[in-house]
Amino acid sequence: MVDAKSVKEANRKAFLDVFPELANEVLDELRKYNMPEDAYEWTKQNLEYNVPGGKLNRGLSVVDTLYILKGDAATEEELHKARILGWLVEFLQAYFLVADDMMDASITRRGQPCWYRKDGVGTIAINDSFILESCIFLFLKKYFKGTSYYIDLVELFHDVSFQTQLGQLCDLITAPEDKVDLSKFSPQKHQFIVIYKTAYYSFYLPVVLALHMAGVHSEEAFKQCHDILIPLGEYFQVQDDYLDCYGDPAFIGKIGTDIQDNKCSWLINQALVIASPEQRKVLDENYGKKDAEAEAKVKQLYLDLNIEQIYKNYENKSYTELRTLIDQVDESTGVKKQVFIEFMDKIYKRTK
Amino acid sequence: MVDAKSVKEANRKAFLDVFPELANEVLDELRKYNMPEDAYEWTKQNLEYNVPGGKLNRGLSVVDTLYILKGDAATEEELHKARILGWLVEFLQAYFLVADDMMDASITRRGQPCWYRKDGVGTIAINDSFILESCIFLFLKKYFKGTSYYIDLVELFHDVSFQTQLGQLCDLITAPEDKVDLSKFSPQKHQFIVIYKTAYYSFYLPVVLALHMAGVHSEEAFKQCHDILIPLGEYFQVQDDYLDCYGDPAFIGKIGTDIQDNKCSWLINQALVIASPEQRKVLDENYGKKDAEAEAKVKQLYLDLNIEQIYKNYENKSYTELRTLIDQVDESTGVKKQVFIEFMDKIYKRTK
Repeated sequence: MVDAKSVKEANRKAFLDVFPELANEVLDELRKYNMPEDAYEWTKQNLEYNVPGGKLNRGLSVVDTLYILKGDAATEEELHKARILGWLVEFLQAYFLVADDMMDASITRRGQPCWYRKDGVGTIAINDSFILESCIFLFLKKYFKGTSYYIDLVELFHDVSFQTQLGQLCDLITAPEDKVDLSKFSPQKHQFIVIYKTAYYSFYLPVVLALHMAGVHSEEAFKQCHDILIPLGEYFQVQDDYLDCYGDPAFIGKIGTDIQDNKCSWLINQALVIASPEQRKVLDENYGKKDAEAEAKVKQLYLDLNIEQIYKNYENKSYTELRTLIDQVDESTGVKKQVFIEFMDKIYKRTK
Repeated sequence: MVDAKSVKEANRKAFLDVFPELANEVLDELRKYNMPEDAYEWTKQNLEYNVPGGKLNRGLSVVDTLYILKGDAATEEELHKARILGWLVEFLQAYFLVADDMMDASITRRGQPCWYRKDGVGTIAINDSFILESCIFLFLKKYFKGTSYYIDLVELFHDVSFQTQLGQLCDLITAPEDKVDLSKFSPQKHQFIVIYKTAYYSFYLPVVLALHMAGVHSEEAFKQCHDILIPLGEYFQVQDDYLDCYGDPAFIGKIGTDIQDNKCSWLINQALVIASPEQRKVLDENYGKKDAEAEAKVKQLYLDLNIEQIYKNYENKSYTELRTLIDQVDESTGVKKQVFIEFMDKIYKRTK
């Protein structure tokens, strides 16, 4: 008997099986260039260390979306190509994460030391992140050059990369870890950061990739996706901010550090809007300090300000609005409501 | 009367005048995205600080090449577009230099502090380098999307970026500044590094960009360019290595530091090939040391090994070979010998 869970596992396995093919594609290219052996081995390590090993949600959602759009009419060849596009989203993410970890001075990633912290790597990781990005266009050329939508895929990756970079820049200068200045925060800035830094590449990109593969190229279809997936991505990140403070560490797999790290989180931005001058003073004095006592004072203030309830209200409102938008989707453009419904089901009410 | 020098100055001025147009293009895009003001200003600074201000040889050579190919038939509109492509080569260079300076821990660039060393920038420069790269594709889309060769330009920038990254990787792991190991050096590795890190983007890229604009798209034409410009670029870098040691600081505008910096220079690679075991020991013990006395010992050894004469022989041989290749160019493919002759004249026998 085939149950949902074993289907999911089989999909995941089929997806994972594609990675070695892609890694070999890059390595073959290096051989063609007669790259010296040590640089060849280095690049092999770069790929293997940084690309697989994540949750793969973004990559898998390309395949899931194609399957929803085409159903059983999807051929094995098409699914294979969708898996490749899914991996390209994972390459894009790897490119950003290798760099972000340097910029955030992070210690670990996916349960192992960050790449730049590996012995002998250091700032060479900057160039390694460039190489991860280059792989995306190498693969697009190799697997999609013959298609009518090749240039659309290329431009989509360019646009989304740029948007993600703009979000990252805004995040970096709004909330540097070593210089707390809450006057730089605002709900508008938080919204810009989460939409540009996360929503485009995590939600909009995978779905539009699948649309192209399914032969849907209309501007109206992309606009419908945009108008649903960007708010959905925004909600996802707000929820992430919420779970950092209120999630169960046993479930989310980590202990939240947003307050101590001076993160431009949804919670602090909500608190700043409604804080009295006295409460604002408490936040100014305690937010972003590497100090459990200061962190506890901020958490107490969140409690006094009832931030958790404000979040619940936001969540309900956002859920209702998105359901309405999904109900209004015009399926004649080629998109299907089910694409968005599955995303909603995965995200709302998650605990990790 | 119009002399060659004043024409050159006018060309340079016309080229420089295009930069503000491009910078505004990016800034308009940020306004469209409602980017917060501080991130907008930051990006403006990033562009203005890092893109203009170089010698602009690479960018100008796109315009020069187009002019050689089309002569007076080149319209003002075409020259404008060639200038834009020229600036894209400068954006590509800026993207690499901002990152290279971090990886090399450089102090100054073009007579000012490296971008990452500016107050408050630091590792944010990594993301800034990404943004510089993204601009290239933003401009290609804006100015060339309607042309038949749009995708060729996009792929060319992808390919050349990747090649440059591979050269940079090989350089970084072959010659780390803090760990001298001459056994990693070899003339083959030196050749790989200079071709991939420099020749493709500095010589091949500008000419092929101009060829596309001039309507030359044949594989044979590109191959001829490749087979001349890659050795020419290789020679250019070998010459750079030579001038670092033997050039007149008053002319080259800097005091060479390749020996102290453990650079994988052409000179040390030639010396390693012919050094006796005793001489090799001197090199192992003195190369890459931040120490004038050690440097002097290496220079003395270069003298003993007659490296300067080996260089002169190489230069003559390389000049003759390239002249022969140029003589054999088949102009019916659309390329012109004059394109290569002008490059040759600029590079051979230069003193800075």
